Amino acid sequence: MRTLDGVGSTPRSGVGAARWYRPDADLTLPDRPDPAAVDAEAELERYDSARDAAREALRDARDRTAERVGEEEAAVFEAHEGFLDDPTIVEDVEAEIRDGTPAAHAVADRFDEAVAQFEGMEGRMAERADDLRDVRDRLLRALLDAEGDGPTGAADLAALPEGTVLLAERLTPSDTAALDPGAVAGIATVEGGRTSHAAIIARSLAIPAVVGVGEALESVADGETVLVDGEAGEVVVDPDGARREAAREAGPDAIRGRVETADGRPVEVAANVGGEAELGPAAERGADGVGLFRTEFLFVDRESPPTEDEQYEAVAAALSAFDDPDDRVVVRTLDVGGDKPVPYLDLPDEPNPFLGRRGIRLSLDEHADLFETQLRALLRAAATEAGDGLAVMFPLVTRVEEVERAVATVESVADDLASEGVDHAVPELGAMVETPAAAFLADALAERLDFLSVGTNDLAQYVMAADRGSDAVAEYHDPLHPAVLRALDRTTAAAEGSDAWVGICGEMAGDPALTELLVGLGFDELSMSAVTAPEVKARVREVDADAAASLASDALACETRREVLDVLGLDDRGP
Amino acid sequence: MRTLDGVGSTPRSGVGAARWYRPDADLTLPDRPDPAAVDAEAELERYDSARDAAREALRDARDRTAERVGEEEAAVFEAHEGFLDDPTIVEDVEAEIRDGTPAAHAVADRFDEAVAQFEGMEGRMAERADDLRDVRDRLLRALLDAEGDGPTGAADLAALPEGTVLLAERLTPSDTAALDPGAVAGIATVEGGRTSHAAIIARSLAIPAVVGVGEALESVADGETVLVDGEAGEVVVDPDGARREAAREAGPDAIRGRVETADGRPVEVAANVGGEAELGPAAERGADGVGLFRTEFLFVDRESPPTEDEQYEAVAAALSAFDDPDDRVVVRTLDVGGDKPVPYLDLPDEPNPFLGRRGIRLSLDEHADLFETQLRALLRAAATEAGDGLAVMFPLVTRVEEVERAVATVESVADDLASEGVDHAVPELGAMVETPAAAFLADALAERLDFLSVGTNDLAQYVMAADRGSDAVAEYHDPLHPAVLRALDRTTAAAEGSDAWVGICGEMAGDPALTELLVGLGFDELSMSAVTAPEVKARVREVDADAAASLASDALACETRREVLDVLGLDDRGP
Repeated sequence: MRTLDGVGSTPRSGVGAARWYRPDADLTLPDRPDPAAVDAEAELERYDSARDAAREALRDARDRTAERVGEEEAAVFEAHEGFLDDPTIVEDVEAEIRDGTPAAHAVADRFDEAVAQFEGMEGRMAERADDLRDVRDRLLRALLDAEGDGPTGAADLAALPEGTVLLAERLTPSDTAALDPGAVAGIATVEGGRTSHAAIIARSLAIPAVVGVGEALESVADGETVLVDGEAGEVVVDPDGARREAAREAGPDAIRGRVETADGRPVEVAANVGGEAELGPAAERGADGVGLFRTEFLFVDRESPPTEDEQYEAVAAALSAFDDPDDRVVVRTLDVGGDKPVPYLDLPDEPNPFLGRRGIRLSLDEHADLFETQLRALLRAAATEAGDGLAVMFPLVTRVEEVERAVATVESVADDLASEGVDHAVPELGAMVETPAAAFLADALAERLDFLSVGTNDLAQYVMAADRGSDAVAEYHDPLHPAVLRALDRTTAAAEGSDAWVGICGEMAGDPALTELLVGLGFDELSMSAVTAPEVKARVREVDADAAASLASDALACETRREVLDVLGLDDRGP
Repeated sequence: MRTLDGVGSTPRSGVGAARWYRPDADLTLPDRPDPAAVDAEAELERYDSARDAAREALRDARDRTAERVGEEEAAVFEAHEGFLDDPTIVEDVEAEIRDGTPAAHAVADRFDEAVAQFEGMEGRMAERADDLRDVRDRLLRALLDAEGDGPTGAADLAALPEGTVLLAERLTPSDTAALDPGAVAGIATVEGGRTSHAAIIARSLAIPAVVGVGEALESVADGETVLVDGEAGEVVVDPDGARREAAREAGPDAIRGRVETADGRPVEVAANVGGEAELGPAAERGADGVGLFRTEFLFVDRESPPTEDEQYEAVAAALSAFDDPDDRVVVRTLDVGGDKPVPYLDLPDEPNPFLGRRGIRLSLDEHADLFETQLRALLRAAATEAGDGLAVMFPLVTRVEEVERAVATVESVADDLASEGVDHAVPELGAMVETPAAAFLADALAERLDFLSVGTNDLAQYVMAADRGSDAVAEYHDPLHPAVLRALDRTTAAAEGSDAWVGICGEMAGDPALTELLVGLGFDELSMSAVTAPEVKARVREVDADAAASLASDALACETRREVLDVLGLDDRGP
């Protein structure tokens, strides 16, 4: 038995047979020919075709990931398309080809240069190098006509035998999205960080993962038995029985049923779900229902909107996956805008799509028809056996009038169904608090609704004026900035006098290190990627509500993120 | 004497000789030829060249307007470039040409169709039809090789004789930006609304204007004496002496010196200035200095950044224009981002430029060198005779650390100047409050700075998640939404315990109908387009501070914009 240290990425453990993935073996370039011997025009055409092929593959990967993992995780492939068509890169590659370099070498030269630039940067930017490598490899694979001829090639990833622990120099987001979480017992990589896109996808798939193990990982041979402990951040080769046992006990098992703080305050711990494939794992991890059921997966990758019946089936399936009387399934109505690829919706290009026509704005106006169809499906699902647990919330609310109009639409849909003699019920209704406007109006919203759910990713984006998808402003986009915490507090404080419950469904809800803070801020429900639900439930049980409130009050008095981290005792999260 | 009613747009009066502007006379299309006789390839090329010519002219208009009027007003020409290159329009025009229509007819067909679509919409969207017409006419002018051969053609606008009252069916933004405010005594148009881009530009140029007079205006002949009363919204033909006198007395004259509310609370009324040409008119309208001196005009339309001396001269000129010991000139440090065309800054394209790298973010990082040069110029200007009045503020603040670093940079620049033996002084320092983050942190910012200045246009954009430049979300982008008022209140309330003064420099500050509300919210300074400074000063003198506070408190309790309008007694501002 020997132990290699790395960075725990998905906080779970798994044991299996090691298998090296060496995609680079496919992509060895031939020697460079004499420039005079290169047919530049033919190579330019090959480059063009390779880009077309890569673009098509990226869109497939996007759609597949959106369906299997979630829309959020799929967005990385849109960024990849950006790299593929980046004018500077394209111009440079074309210029090099014209100077007599074959397309494959020109692609390798230019992308390797860009990879080196990114690697020279700090923090999250450095991890974008993986994304560039992913795009480079797609292009090279097309240009070299290589496809899975190495020991374990890219084509094999989707079909690994059950109980595989996958070892690699590094994994790209595409690689990771192709994995079957039922087959892969764990992942360990030489390089990589826990905020890379590949690590995020692995977490969403709940695959145990340790990244950044370093060259020591190369000592592991194909076929050796390996334990990946994503909690301790360790890779154990040939683990003994005690170590296997310890790993099994290290992470808390799924905790079934509602939990309370040490002093008896109930806190609901639910799952964010972006597709039907995530329902099973979420239930298995002990989530108290779904705190955010994204419905976009029903609308993407098709030629026309889903029918009322298709939507009804999908929501009914979610309700049956969580049919405990205590369990709730909170469905968010369609949340698309100019930055999301839903061709048949004919959304306009906008100079700032995150500040444009999206969410409830579209549902109350140009897509009122889709909204009504979706509400019909939801009200019908509310009348099924497990339908009591249904709740419906509206995205991107900024005005009280929007909520009033949305509620009126629900009522008119209910009237229609009644007059048609169709079984239906009106579910709990709520609003997403993901704009500063909604936080400032939380009192008025809470008066009119059954619940509020704070989307911290978007809220931080608007409070801090920092695009959540842009690495260039990633340091601003952090919910631990005091301004964002104050916006959270404004929301929970304003709702306190009402009957409405308040949840939170951004990424921060899934971080056990922030559970005490969020309980202290007054959230009744925490909804997260299900993989950390057991840890968060265990943490809730340890929290004392009064101590949590006092911690929250200290955090709210802070003026910088650094001070917030000090108050939370989190000194290891960078500047 | 006869009186025609219209909509007052610039609240000033002027008298002069009528002169009709009929640009359409140049743009009559020849008869349509037989499709078989059309050389489609040649016409496609002509369309391409016309677009190139129009694009170049638009960029000239943009730069000229940025310099003469201001960056904000110039932005409309970027929108025009968007229409020019709109893929749907371009494709449709090209398809029609290929079917045998000459380029000019195809452009006219397609744009007239789009104009009709916009005219069918409500509110501000309808006014965008003018923008489309502007682009169409540019294209047609290039295609028909027409240039100012009509009674008063486009080319003549810049050279109208002094004392002209310009009459037109409608004016485009380009038309208006070309006018010389020293020569044009007034504008009256048959069509148009007060929020059209042309009307906004006329206001910035302080040209008296009445729009939407209707067909009755056609009864006015070239050469008749006409009084344009932009306060009353009247066009008076052949006015008698009493009417002329009344018009002169109707609008308040410039009020010199600081004003106080009826019960003695001082309120500073300052001007927003986007270029040197606006300094004289601002002083003439009685502004108590400059509340927002935008420095972007120094950086655009050139190949390299302005030198320290150029910047020093520009700021010194502003300080001498307001050399009264009470007058203040608040200079905003460079505020550019990915949406502004400053080629030598090499700003990246961003998917959401308003949520990207801009303002202080660039000044503390990739453009630290420009920031230091600008601060050197400002600290030197602070040591000139009128330099006591200088204040400097930082744009797009979202973190306390940014202010701390900006202040540290000011100190280090002061040290450098001292060690070089260069005369300098450290001016008052402040921050723009234009992000929700800054509003939530206003207490911490006020502790560290001499003043805060709220930019309501940007603040409303981020609070409401609505692009300030996008007509598609214009209804959201309104400072009278309760959420925006609450963000203003959060700012003034948080600063109340500190020594910092709080100003407001968004468009709402210049609306006399909102003066009482803003005084009630606790603003010490209102800064606006200088044209309404006399009205606002007169209004301040009428306000009772206690009644204003009570009005503000009523407005803050509102939950919808409609309720706010009711509280303010403004029932004529649409839904």
